[in-house]
Amino acid sequence: MSKSLIKWTVGTLAFSMSAVSAQAELPSQQQEQAPGWFRMMVGEYEVTALYDGQTTIDTSLLKGMEQDEILRHLNTLFIDAESGMQTAVNAFLIHTGENLVLVDAGSAACFGPTLGQVESNLRASGYSPDEVDTVLMTHLHPDHVCGLADENGEAVYPQAELRASQADADFWLDEERAAAAPEGNQAFFEMAQNAVAPYQASGRFKPFTAGDEVLMGIVAHDTHGHTAGHTSFMLNSDDDAMLVWGDVVHSYGVQFADPTVAIEFDSDPEQAIRTRESVLESAVEDKHWIAGAHMPFPGIGHIVKEEEGYRWLPVEFGPIATDD
Amino acid sequence: MSKSLIKWTVGTLAFSMSAVSAQAELPSQQQEQAPGWFRMMVGEYEVTALYDGQTTIDTSLLKGMEQDEILRHLNTLFIDAESGMQTAVNAFLIHTGENLVLVDAGSAACFGPTLGQVESNLRASGYSPDEVDTVLMTHLHPDHVCGLADENGEAVYPQAELRASQADADFWLDEERAAAAPEGNQAFFEMAQNAVAPYQASGRFKPFTAGDEVLMGIVAHDTHGHTAGHTSFMLNSDDDAMLVWGDVVHSYGVQFADPTVAIEFDSDPEQAIRTRESVLESAVEDKHWIAGAHMPFPGIGHIVKEEEGYRWLPVEFGPIATDD
Repeated sequence: MSKSLIKWTVGTLAFSMSAVSAQAELPSQQQEQAPGWFRMMVGEYEVTALYDGQTTIDTSLLKGMEQDEILRHLNTLFIDAESGMQTAVNAFLIHTGENLVLVDAGSAACFGPTLGQVESNLRASGYSPDEVDTVLMTHLHPDHVCGLADENGEAVYPQAELRASQADADFWLDEERAAAAPEGNQAFFEMAQNAVAPYQASGRFKPFTAGDEVLMGIVAHDTHGHTAGHTSFMLNSDDDAMLVWGDVVHSYGVQFADPTVAIEFDSDPEQAIRTRESVLESAVEDKHWIAGAHMPFPGIGHIVKEEEGYRWLPVEFGPIATDD
Repeated sequence: MSKSLIKWTVGTLAFSMSAVSAQAELPSQQQEQAPGWFRMMVGEYEVTALYDGQTTIDTSLLKGMEQDEILRHLNTLFIDAESGMQTAVNAFLIHTGENLVLVDAGSAACFGPTLGQVESNLRASGYSPDEVDTVLMTHLHPDHVCGLADENGEAVYPQAELRASQADADFWLDEERAAAAPEGNQAFFEMAQNAVAPYQASGRFKPFTAGDEVLMGIVAHDTHGHTAGHTSFMLNSDDDAMLVWGDVVHSYGVQFADPTVAIEFDSDPEQAIRTRESVLESAVEDKHWIAGAHMPFPGIGHIVKEEEGYRWLPVEFGPIATDD
């Protein structure tokens, strides 16, 4: 048989096969979620939300509202609280034109397999960890700090300066305070210290003070209460502004309706409430963007005042709108 | 020089190079948006929202409300209307376990480069167009129908049965009606006829009647008004339900606040308003999911009643929650 005849036969066979199976073949359900990143411009700054994953928070951790009222609020908003409220963990990557800045680093392996995706989503979004030159921390809780170091204790962002507020560093990195803490809280100190260690060792850990312009166009706002040095970062570019607020709100279903509800993890609940009230009022007045670590991914939106409480208006998905 | 010495030298060189450049190199801003798909379960049905892109709608196309009141509503919700309201176009892919069903096919090239991404997002989400066995049309407007055929007039879903309501087929595929239409509207007829043609030619175009269970667990609901045969599809699986409602709402910023506002494209505005009012009431009462072609991507959410009008509660991003 000549080579061309073989080709012809194979061609015919392929044709009749496809004629026989002229019906779609049903694949399995894919059951994979889309990659967890989202991008937008704030003036000339490019902001990328990075999804670390989600965890569940038991409603009993919310303080200052009866459980049945909490459930009524959640129910109205179709938030299923039966096995805890689904709570996102988001980090934010900001390309200012001069710097590539990560705000918070996610949970890595500190809270199990439903979290720890900041690094992979940063890569999926088109960047590489060694391109990050600055990491800003809103505070040193493990769901923000653990992603700084890998399982060998090496820096995940090997070229970056790490910056946290002096007040949070004084608290979480103090070995005496750690030793004196209740046993259940000691892991939090240890996680913070392990995550910060490689940056300290290479001389790249540089605390800031509230009020500092940590980078051009990025100012550290004092929003303490949730932790001693909890910080929000205000970005300003052209006429646009965004407050990367960290943990000002944990439960959008309850704390927008009533900002006086605190959460178990607040180190100073009364101050955390005052901070939340004042940050929400400013956001309504100034109409700037909010980027929240625990708001539903991508965690970006605006806030409007309601007759009672506030309302969250999530950003709309769309193409990147540049001024060019 | 021996081979091993060369290796050693190269190793040292590489080491000193990295020591010199111990500073992150700033890449360009990526300015790409994340892929436009999103997935969730409705009972045992897997639903994937597919982003076709976005277009802008001039507020003057909204009828039944003064322009300054329209702008006031949009302004409150931070919707920029200066160069038209950003309006998403979404299609939905449903894997029922028995069928892979696409609802609407997007705009292809009919409305320019900001639209036409249904096929690429379907692929990005893990499926292939030739795995789709059924395409259901909410109606035969070009931003839903053009994606059925490629630039050569071939079926993009070569193994699929195409199903549209008899009433919409009678209207848009009628050549006499097309010829009698005002010149400005004739393109709509032509686009529908071209898109449906390859499915008709291969005997795979099968109209349905409102009320039909078009596939197991998927019922065609009569929601005419926007077009003569506009249809919404109600999915029911286990105790969960979703109404894929097509074009019941075009402007979430205005028509939730006041459902009596119509849009220029409605073929029977009075009936479109009655349909919208009744669909919104049912959604509030039955608490089912809504999947909307022109709601902000992914277009999926719930509806609650407000003192005046209604409020849209978008679905929260997260991992795929199966009952297993």
